[in-house]
Amino acid sequence: MGVDTPSIADAAATALADARARIRTGELTGPTSGLAPGFAQANLVILPGSYALDFLRFCVRNPKPCPILEVTDTGSPHPGALSPEADLRTDLPRYRVFEDGSLVDEPTDVSRYWRDDLVSFLLGCSFTFEWALAAAGLPLAHQRQRVNVPMFVTDRRCTGAGPFEGPLVVSMRPFIPDDIARAVEISSRFPAMHGGPIHVGDPAELGITDLGAPDFGDPVEIEPGEVPVFWACGVTPQAVVVEARPPLAIFHAPGHMFITDRPHAEFDSQEKAS
Amino acid sequence: MGVDTPSIADAAATALADARARIRTGELTGPTSGLAPGFAQANLVILPGSYALDFLRFCVRNPKPCPILEVTDTGSPHPGALSPEADLRTDLPRYRVFEDGSLVDEPTDVSRYWRDDLVSFLLGCSFTFEWALAAAGLPLAHQRQRVNVPMFVTDRRCTGAGPFEGPLVVSMRPFIPDDIARAVEISSRFPAMHGGPIHVGDPAELGITDLGAPDFGDPVEIEPGEVPVFWACGVTPQAVVVEARPPLAIFHAPGHMFITDRPHAEFDSQEKAS
Repeated sequence: MGVDTPSIADAAATALADARARIRTGELTGPTSGLAPGFAQANLVILPGSYALDFLRFCVRNPKPCPILEVTDTGSPHPGALSPEADLRTDLPRYRVFEDGSLVDEPTDVSRYWRDDLVSFLLGCSFTFEWALAAAGLPLAHQRQRVNVPMFVTDRRCTGAGPFEGPLVVSMRPFIPDDIARAVEISSRFPAMHGGPIHVGDPAELGITDLGAPDFGDPVEIEPGEVPVFWACGVTPQAVVVEARPPLAIFHAPGHMFITDRPHAEFDSQEKAS
Repeated sequence: MGVDTPSIADAAATALADARARIRTGELTGPTSGLAPGFAQANLVILPGSYALDFLRFCVRNPKPCPILEVTDTGSPHPGALSPEADLRTDLPRYRVFEDGSLVDEPTDVSRYWRDDLVSFLLGCSFTFEWALAAAGLPLAHQRQRVNVPMFVTDRRCTGAGPFEGPLVVSMRPFIPDDIARAVEISSRFPAMHGGPIHVGDPAELGITDLGAPDFGDPVEIEPGEVPVFWACGVTPQAVVVEARPPLAIFHAPGHMFITDRPHAEFDSQEKAS
């Protein structure tokens, strides 16, 4: 899709190069949704090396909210596997910088915070399964309503690792019952992008009391007959890291993701040859 | 399969408890193939904490040979996710202990080598996809010929991480052309157990010159018309770690795996709900 023929692939590659250049120079500082269509985007977490092993253990133990796409070499800002030419210090439109658990800056470039002991983690992002759902003709309420997906803190605990522990955060997308099986089936094909939902139906089962009051993002209207479907969300690791209060932690600003060089389809476990 | 009904599940659980007890006391010191049928087995790598982040990065970068099932807390010998009651110091029938890259011991218990800074990694093992292949009626030549699966060092390099780098090691199983598609399809359902093959056919493409002279394991006879099929192999991380010469590294002895509490079917990506 989108990269099937040379001319479309060329156009897609040009759009990617253009988006990355405009982000790098600071011309483009807004959310990345809709930019460089066809390419997977990723959550970013940057931590001092002394926290990296525990954080990686946390990701291994909680693969639904924290699917690991890549871990850089210590001190390197280059994601060699996903996008070797990219620089994680400049190639996201906006970042959030935390010191000792407090938000201290929301810059468009984190070069001045860079240290030789930092390790960067790129984690899967729901945009890829949303792309697959849309390609299959399944309507997404938050896109139709032009708002951010609603996210909720649940009463389920992640499996802890060292200083990292906390609740699972989920995103919610409503579907009519006829579409639920396909929504599950399609998103399940992308385990590196949060995979299938963790829950279908009654939000109380997750300790969510009011779907109209999300903890992050925006409320979406649920039409009569629609059922809420919940996916593990990439906000989970951000919340857990902030709670652990490391001396320094850098994230993408919400919605301001890293755009990778890799087409969505590469993360389809039923397409992947190796 | 094998745990479908309560009585069969009970018998399987009893066989598991019995095998683990006999291994723990040192009564059972042989290979684990065929023990506690129905339960997944795992490769074991134990390293000092100072090597753990680089090794985990190596595994993330090379998921086919090094699929991560679990990483323990530093100093803990208990695999909390796979088998919380187990003790990795005593619950494998035989180990290999390396100091500075040299084999120094092949004990049946590594309690005396234990240190508070050790981290244990459990990696997926091909027994699970072999179980699935056998359940589907696909004959395995090495089992029919009652030898170990043949393994070969290839000319493909793994993606390095810190001190860890080296060639990909593969295992080879021959199939008739009619069975190849199903062998690929079935093994691909188990990404945590090496997943689908990395190559089908001409061994020269992997730099393998003589199928009759494996680097590890035993040669198998390939019948006329059979095609060699190659899977990434759990010997890869052992070879790479030994080359890096850490002061201490402990592995399972070849074929003497850790038997987990988890049924094979739990690792089938098409069965798994979450």
